[in-house]
Amino acid sequence: MTSCIEDCLACYRTCLSSAMGHCLEAGGKHVEKGHFTLMMACAEICRTSAHFMLIGTPHHRHTCAECAEICAECADDCERLGGMDDCVEACRRCAESCRRMASTH
Amino acid sequence: MTSCIEDCLACYRTCLSSAMGHCLEAGGKHVEKGHFTLMMACAEICRTSAHFMLIGTPHHRHTCAECAEICAECADDCERLGGMDDCVEACRRCAESCRRMASTH
Amino acid sequence: MTSCIEDCLACYRTCLSSAMGHCLEAGGKHVEKGHFTLMMACAEICRTSAHFMLIGTPHHRHTCAECAEICAECADDCERLGGMDDCVEACRRCAESCRRMASTH
Amino acid sequence: MTSCIEDCLACYRTCLSSAMGHCLEAGGKHVEKGHFTLMMACAEICRTSAHFMLIGTPHHRHTCAECAEICAECADDCERLGGMDDCVEACRRCAESCRRMASTH
Repeated sequence: MTSCIEDCLACYRTCLSSAMGHCLEAGGKHVEKGHFTLMMACAEICRTSAHFMLIGTPHHRHTCAECAEICAECADDCERLGGMDDCVEACRRCAESCRRMASTH
Repeated sequence: MTSCIEDCLACYRTCLSSAMGHCLEAGGKHVEKGHFTLMMACAEICRTSAHFMLIGTPHHRHTCAECAEICAECADDCERLGGMDDCVEACRRCAESCRRMASTH
Repeated sequence: MTSCIEDCLACYRTCLSSAMGHCLEAGGKHVEKGHFTLMMACAEICRTSAHFMLIGTPHHRHTCAECAEICAECADDCERLGGMDDCVEACRRCAESCRRMASTH
Repeated sequence: MTSCIEDCLACYRTCLSSAMGHCLEAGGKHVEKGHFTLMMACAEICRTSAHFMLIGTPHHRHTCAECAEICAECADDCERLGGMDDCVEACRRCAESCRRMASTH
């Protein structure tokens, strides 16, 4: 679980700082509502999934499942736009980590 | 959606302040790990569901579905302990509101 | 304190939904880094100040003082841009409410 | 700034998981309102300070200053109780890191 918390917080950091740094500076398609909202939703669900694991609630499996979904979608969208390799990598890693966590009993 | 955001934030306020006020002061079964963790998980998912609706992501339906689950469980647990009528009411109202939101297309 | 929590959560809602709705749709100066970051900082400090009051920590006076600062700055910036009357009003009300709370002993 | 973000998130993780794990299990003075509330306030201000640095707002200096205050107080209180060496260390490191960040121009 420790490594999943780390992957969630790493993805939270990368998505949030990329959205508020790179995307706002780049403008254009980077600040289109669909993409930007997905980045912020990804940052928030990663933050919440980490929080759920840290407080030790068994419901973390459900937030991790949702986190895996949003991260996978965010990775695809960042790949489509290009120039966001850090986000793509952090999202893919977190999606994989959360998917495993969601299916653990 | 406005009323669901309100119900989520009202439940967040009630659960968080009851856990950190009433439960810590009452002690005993009120600070047992199972109950206290459920209260904090409920506060956090309500906070996140409201956030998802406010940023306008379509994924709010999934966080609302999870919010409805946790609120219903929290309402039952608060009812079992007794003396937490505010929480029971706020959780039931939020569960109902989120369940409706989760099934909206 | 109840009314200050309400003002903080109202300002959080208005700033976050305006930034992610109105600002992203309007584009142009509304998504310039300075303005957009201020809106998001305002939403976050309002969320945190409410949280501090809800958990009952005496440090809420310091987060309320910082909240008053950021809200006042955000109100001015939204007024400068125009077309954001809801934000201006919510920020001014919250700034006033937090300033009072910060100076309470 | 990267290392301050890391110190804040490390302190957030340690305080939150210790409060919701170790403190709830140990009971007694570990769940007394003063101590437990301080732990949760520390976790929350660390989370917020990291968030402010990640979104790139110049106001991070004020949240870092407040973070340094609360972390120092939390370290002292955890030392007083004993058996919480991880928290003491994470809080002291974060306090030092945030104090430096708060005084940077």
